[in-house]
Order: sequence, then structure tokens, then C-alpha cells
Amino acid sequence: MSSSSGRVIAVDTHDIRFPTSRELDGSDAMNPDPDYSAAYVVLRTDADDALEGHGFTFTIGRGNEVQVAAIEALRPHVLGRPVDELCADPGSLVRDLTGDSQLRWLGPEKGVMHMAIGAVANAVWDLAAKRARKPLWQLLADATPEWLVAQVDFRYIADVLTPEDALHLLRRGREGSAARTELLRERGFPGYTTSPGWLGYSDEKLTRLARQAVADGFTQIKLKVGADLADDMRRCRAARAAVGPGIRIAIDANQRWNVGEAIEWTKALAEFDPYWIEEPTSPDDVLGHASVREAVAPVKVATGEHVQNRIIFKQLLQAGAVDVLQIDAARVGGVNENLAILLLAAKFGVPVCPHAGGVGLCELVQHLSMFDYVALAGTVEDRVIEYVDHLHDHFLDPVVIGEGHYMAPTAPGFSATMRPESIAEFTFPGGAFWAADLAERARGEQRTAKGRKGEAA
Amino acid sequence: MSSSSGRVIAVDTHDIRFPTSRELDGSDAMNPDPDYSAAYVVLRTDADDALEGHGFTFTIGRGNEVQVAAIEALRPHVLGRPVDELCADPGSLVRDLTGDSQLRWLGPEKGVMHMAIGAVANAVWDLAAKRARKPLWQLLADATPEWLVAQVDFRYIADVLTPEDALHLLRRGREGSAARTELLRERGFPGYTTSPGWLGYSDEKLTRLARQAVADGFTQIKLKVGADLADDMRRCRAARAAVGPGIRIAIDANQRWNVGEAIEWTKALAEFDPYWIEEPTSPDDVLGHASVREAVAPVKVATGEHVQNRIIFKQLLQAGAVDVLQIDAARVGGVNENLAILLLAAKFGVPVCPHAGGVGLCELVQHLSMFDYVALAGTVEDRVIEYVDHLHDHFLDPVVIGEGHYMAPTAPGFSATMRPESIAEFTFPGGAFWAADLAERARGEQRTAKGRKGEAA
Repeated sequence: MSSSSGRVIAVDTHDIRFPTSRELDGSDAMNPDPDYSAAYVVLRTDADDALEGHGFTFTIGRGNEVQVAAIEALRPHVLGRPVDELCADPGSLVRDLTGDSQLRWLGPEKGVMHMAIGAVANAVWDLAAKRARKPLWQLLADATPEWLVAQVDFRYIADVLTPEDALHLLRRGREGSAARTELLRERGFPGYTTSPGWLGYSDEKLTRLARQAVADGFTQIKLKVGADLADDMRRCRAARAAVGPGIRIAIDANQRWNVGEAIEWTKALAEFDPYWIEEPTSPDDVLGHASVREAVAPVKVATGEHVQNRIIFKQLLQAGAVDVLQIDAARVGGVNENLAILLLAAKFGVPVCPHAGGVGLCELVQHLSMFDYVALAGTVEDRVIEYVDHLHDHFLDPVVIGEGHYMAPTAPGFSATMRPESIAEFTFPGGAFWAADLAERARGEQRTAKGRKGEAA
Repeated sequence: MSSSSGRVIAVDTHDIRFPTSRELDGSDAMNPDPDYSAAYVVLRTDADDALEGHGFTFTIGRGNEVQVAAIEALRPHVLGRPVDELCADPGSLVRDLTGDSQLRWLGPEKGVMHMAIGAVANAVWDLAAKRARKPLWQLLADATPEWLVAQVDFRYIADVLTPEDALHLLRRGREGSAARTELLRERGFPGYTTSPGWLGYSDEKLTRLARQAVADGFTQIKLKVGADLADDMRRCRAARAAVGPGIRIAIDANQRWNVGEAIEWTKALAEFDPYWIEEPTSPDDVLGHASVREAVAPVKVATGEHVQNRIIFKQLLQAGAVDVLQIDAARVGGVNENLAILLLAAKFGVPVCPHAGGVGLCELVQHLSMFDYVALAGTVEDRVIEYVDHLHDHFLDPVVIGEGHYMAPTAPGFSATMRPESIAEFTFPGGAFWAADLAERARGEQRTAKGRKGEAA
């Protein structure tokens, strides 16, 4: 390896927060006031091509600084790595990151440390795809089954999915992939929209946005539920009236319920023909989801956005606990672990309908679904990617939606690169937006304190 | 509430690391070189009694700074709280901490953020017990069943354990508690020792320490296994020869194996009559543990030190996946969540044998087992607390072991208070030990660099 091919010379981190809580965008039964945020990482190299790898973890505000600290704890593993080797085998880095015996204690493979690993791994994949001059979905679809299998960590899942199983699935997945690539480029991948259904919206806004969604070509919408049953019934009725019988309405409780509550509440909403109930209870509760699924059929059970790793996904499939698997691009250990999860889903024949929204999650996860369609599952039947119309303008290569479909990205990379001016403005607490905001709050507090003094005097 | 009773005025944090890796103390198949560490928190108040609440999360070195950052993210929830209210109902704070909707995204209830909640919750319990002038085990044993039930969060476990179930178990547990308190004060609670069995020790050292353990009155020892089968067989043979047939030998794989490997390896070691196989695979793999347990009986299956929360413990019990439940005082959400786990274990009649060792884990967890004995499970049969003879001298109220038993603490509090001089010396990186160590390393690197220059010249 010649030194001119470059090494990683910097792992820059950014604490970026958008003040979304002020509009009640993104409000649900568990998350009343999220400030959509990213713990953002940029890998810089001294290679001649001057390409950077961008990655991030999505959070909803407070604690984003903890996530940044976790990414920084990984820095020594990344600095100095030869770029060619890194991009030729991102899995080698991921194994080092998950295998750091001291950091592993903080998980293992879950929560803050694991999300940090995902951010760094995804930054490497972004760099690898940029260097290959391909959008990530295509890099994955063009890769050999053998190479893809080598990117997967089979530890703790080999009792259900062996490397040989994975090879078989990927070889089968390649059959007809050229034709599917053409179809994908032409039509895109189906999406569904959550934009009408935030809990903080009025019925009028819900109805208007639901109609708009159908007009825009979406065949599925989603409503947040779980705070108040009477409200949920009224909102589901309004949504069903707005979209008619032919459109799927998913409902999403964001982990609000115990198992028993989940069953009762879902049955109470069944008259509005919900397509799936999402996150009925804790994402850790495999057996709980199995109970819910058995009780609420034919309403389907979906979960995954908060599922911590491939080991829980494995068990959700083993236990027959879900009808729909919802991967998230930035919660597990990056593309590598999502490959494992896509392979598990393929083995069990369960459709993958990714979670998205937040900051940049749509941008990332579309690549994984498109790879799944072209080169693994081989179908879009009952597959949809969540779409939320938030914050896309902050990205250099934002998602493009046409007729309710995600259009296939064509730019090289993982669509993860945020605009430099957005990073500058929304860096917390020093960026222009937050500096002004915090100064304004401080003035407000001063005025209040003076008022109180006046009263007391 | 009069203001003279005080409020929390400071949440101080300390990154404390002990250089244990240099002696191979604590080495196992997954953790070859741990530097036993604590992300330490001190709650200070302006109450007249000048008492402090001390708590911590145990880590094994790198990443301890991430854990400290997570504790600091909780500070706004704690500062300003009236001390009387806090100590009268620690659960109200824990609910606020786990319920912070933005921080919750970083878990939920797992990994770095959840361990931070545990550290803060335990600091409150330490303060509450100091103010009550009781060791924590006694504060818990003296509490009413109704109050204890109110300290538990039943979310996500109510399908298996209701508040009514818990009340029934606690009322039953009180019967005969006075007599058990006397017995506990007289004889202590049984321990077992892991000190002979670290993977980095020679066979000679293992044999010597195993004989010493029996001479010291322990009736169970533990060996680390999982790196190399031939080594494990040789070491198990040596240990069995050293202790004879009447002493229990537990073996501990520290999550090293896949399910299939766990079964094969344990069967291969069965000839040495191991009492339990601990952490045979991922702590997240409920169904995997169930498979292992079915296959390796009569060897028992134990796990829990890395189990992230009550929801996974619930499922381990539901699925019949474990014979022995191993709580850890500092991984889950503090005393409150451990109460939930003790109640779940009591409901299923599964013995709790806590994980300990590390930094201060013995000091903490003895209180939970002693409460369990006196006022919940009501027996010490097949119950033992792990004991490791590390780092106790750094605590003001270290554990006292007599005839292989943990003697009941008598000092008020949770035995969590570290000596100020230990905090000062081992604070990373600025404490006296690390400052000298890092300076020495820097000089070594300079010498190496000069040597290289000399060679190149």
C-alpha cells in the first residue's frame, strides 16, 4: 500500500440541533417535544482525491453531547487507517470498534456506544461509495455475495443465520437484479408518509395533510397514537374519512403501552382498519411483541426503529413476533449490521419497511432498501420506506420523492453530507441560531428576575 | 417543606480509573486488559446534616469519560430538588430520569444513559440511607411493602408482575424477617470467590488460590473459560483437584460463544462437574439462553451482569432461560429497577446470585441480597454473592468477609463512599497516579522517537 493513497487524518465531530420542538413536528405519545439533532462525524484523509466520509447518529436533542463524546471515544481506532484498506473492508474497522474490550463494557452493542459505532461505520461507507463513484445502494448491489458476507458479523446470530445461509440468499438475490435496477431507476421505491399524523396536529391539519398525501401519490400514511384513546379514535376516523378505504393507515404507539394495553388499544382501533400497529410496547420485549401479534391479527405488528442490534432482531423473527421489520440506518452498527438484519429478514421472508424521518434518516435508509430490492429480497411487495418532509434541505443530496416513491440516488456516496452552512448555523450551543436563541432566553430570564424583584419590593 | 431541610446544590462527577490491567487481575475471555474504573457522582446539599449521596457506574477503562458525560446530562433533573422529598421517594426522580423524552432516545433504558441513571439513583439511595442512619439493606427491609411497590416502575413488566403481585410477595417476605435479620447479623450472607479463576493466571496460581478459597471458608469458586478449550479443560481439572468434589465450581464464558459453541463447550467441560455456566452467549439473547439451558442440563445457566434492564430479565424468566439470575448493582436503573428484578425472580422462584467485583460492586450489591434474604426471598439456599478481593481499600466502608460470608454492613448508607485520597490519586487523567504515568509514557515515546531518528540518520 503506497502512502500516497492516503490515511485518515481527522475525525471531526459536530453537535447539531434543529429547533423542531417549536412546531410540534415529530410529536408523538412518548416524544412530545423533540429537537431533531445529529451527532455528526466527518472523516478527513490526506488522499489526493480530497473526499470525506460523513456519518451521524440521530437524536432528539438533550444528550446529543453524550453521543458526540461516544464518537470521540472511537477516534483512536480510526485515525491513521489507510484509506484504501478501510474502504475495501469497512467490516474490519467495525469489528475493531465493537471488539474494543473496554468500550464494549458500555453496551455491549447497544445504546450510546453502539450508535456511535454506527455513525463512524456509516461515514466509512459514505467515503467508500464516494471513492467508488457510486451511490451506496449500487455499490452494495454490485458487490459479490462473498464480499458482502465478509462484511457481516455472525457472532450471536449463527444459530439462525450462517455465512453459508447468507451466501445462498445473496446468490439467489442476484438473479434478475439487472432488470430490477432498471425498474428502480425508472419508478423508484415506494414510500409512505407520516407527515399528516403527528400527535400535536389539529384534526383539520391531519385531514388536510392526509388528503394531500393521497394526492401526492402515497398509498400509505401513518398516525401517531397512544396518548388518549378517545382522541385516537377521533383522529383515526378523520384520517380514514380523508383517505378512503383503499389507502393503508399505519398506527404508531412509540412504545407507550404495556402488553395488555397494547392489545386492548389496538383492538379498539381495529374498526378503522389499521394496516400495522408500530412499536406497541418496549423494543426489548420480544415475547411481548409475540403476544401482541397473536392477539391483534389481522392487524400487523411492526417494530425496529429502537431495536438495538441484530440479536434482538434475530429473536423477533425466531419468535414470530413481527409481521414487518423496521430497520433504522443510524441506530445499529452501521451498514454492516443492517446487512445482517436484512439477511435475517430475507431468511424468514419478513418484509423490511425502514424507519425514517428525523435528520437525514430518509437520506441514508433509502440506500439499504434499494439494495434489498435489487439484490436480496428482490421485491417491493408490501415494502415501503417511511417518509417525513423534514430538514432535507440541509443535505447536499436530499431525497427526491416522485409519485409517492423514493427516486434512486445517483450521486456517489451515502447521501449523508450535510451543507456546511447548516452545520455552522445549527451547531449547539455555539452556532448562529443557538447563540442568538440562548442570548434571547438569557435576556428573558433577566426581565423575569427584574419583574420578580419589582413585585417583591 | 421548609427550606432549611435543604436542596441538592451540586452534582459532582469524577472519572476514576485504577490501572488493574497491569496485573491481569480481572482478565477473561472477552476482557483481556481491564482498567477497573468508576464514573463517580457525588450529590451535595445545603441541608444542615452536611450528608452527601455517593454513586457510580463501573466501567473497565476507555469510555469512562462518556459515562461521566452521561451522568452530567442528568444534572438538571437533580439540581435544586428538595432533599426530604428526594429521599422520601427516590422513585420520583428515577421516573423523571428514565422519562426524559429526549434522553430516552439514547436508550431507551439501556447502555450508557441507563447506567448513568443507575449511578444517580444509587447516589440518592446512599443519601437516603445515611439520613435514615441505616445501612441500605436495613432501610429496605424496614420499609412497608406499599412504599417499596411505589418505588418500582411496572411499565413493560406488568404482563408478568403486577403491583398486586409485588405487594403479595413483599407481604409474604416479611413473615419471619426479624429472625432472619438476627441470623444475617450473626452469620452474614454466603459469598463465592472468583479470585482464583482469572484467565491470565498460571495453573500454579490458580491451584494455590483455589485451595486458599476453601481454607477461607468459601464453598464455591469461579473460573473464567472460553478462550481455548484445551486450556479450559486443564484449568478445570486443576481446580477440581485443588478443591475436591464438595466445592461448587462455576465457570464463566463472559459472552464469548454463539449458542452452538456454548452448548458444545459446556458439554466438553461437564466432566469436571461445573455448577453453572455463566454468560454463555450474548446477554441480549433470551431465546439463545433457553436453548443452551435445555441442552446443558444438569449444568445450570446463569446470566445477568450485562442484562440491560428489567424487560430482558422478565423474558429470561418467562422463557425458562436461566437457573440463576445475576443482578448487578450498577448496570440497571439503580435500586429501584433492581427491586423490580428481585420481585420478578421471587415470583418465578429463581435464586438471585449477584455479580460483583470491579470497583465497589461488592460494596453495593450486598445490600440488595441482604434485603432479598430478610424481606423477600427469605432464604439463602443456593444464593451466593460473588466476591473478588480487588480495590476494597478505596472505600470508607469496605465489605467484610468472614468464613466465606459477607458480614452485614452496619454503617449508614449504601457503602458507596470512596476515600477522598483515592479519588484524588486515580482521577483520570489529572490525578497523581495518571499524571505521573502519562508523563512517563510521553518520555518513553520521546526516547523511541529519538532512537528512530538515530537509526534513520
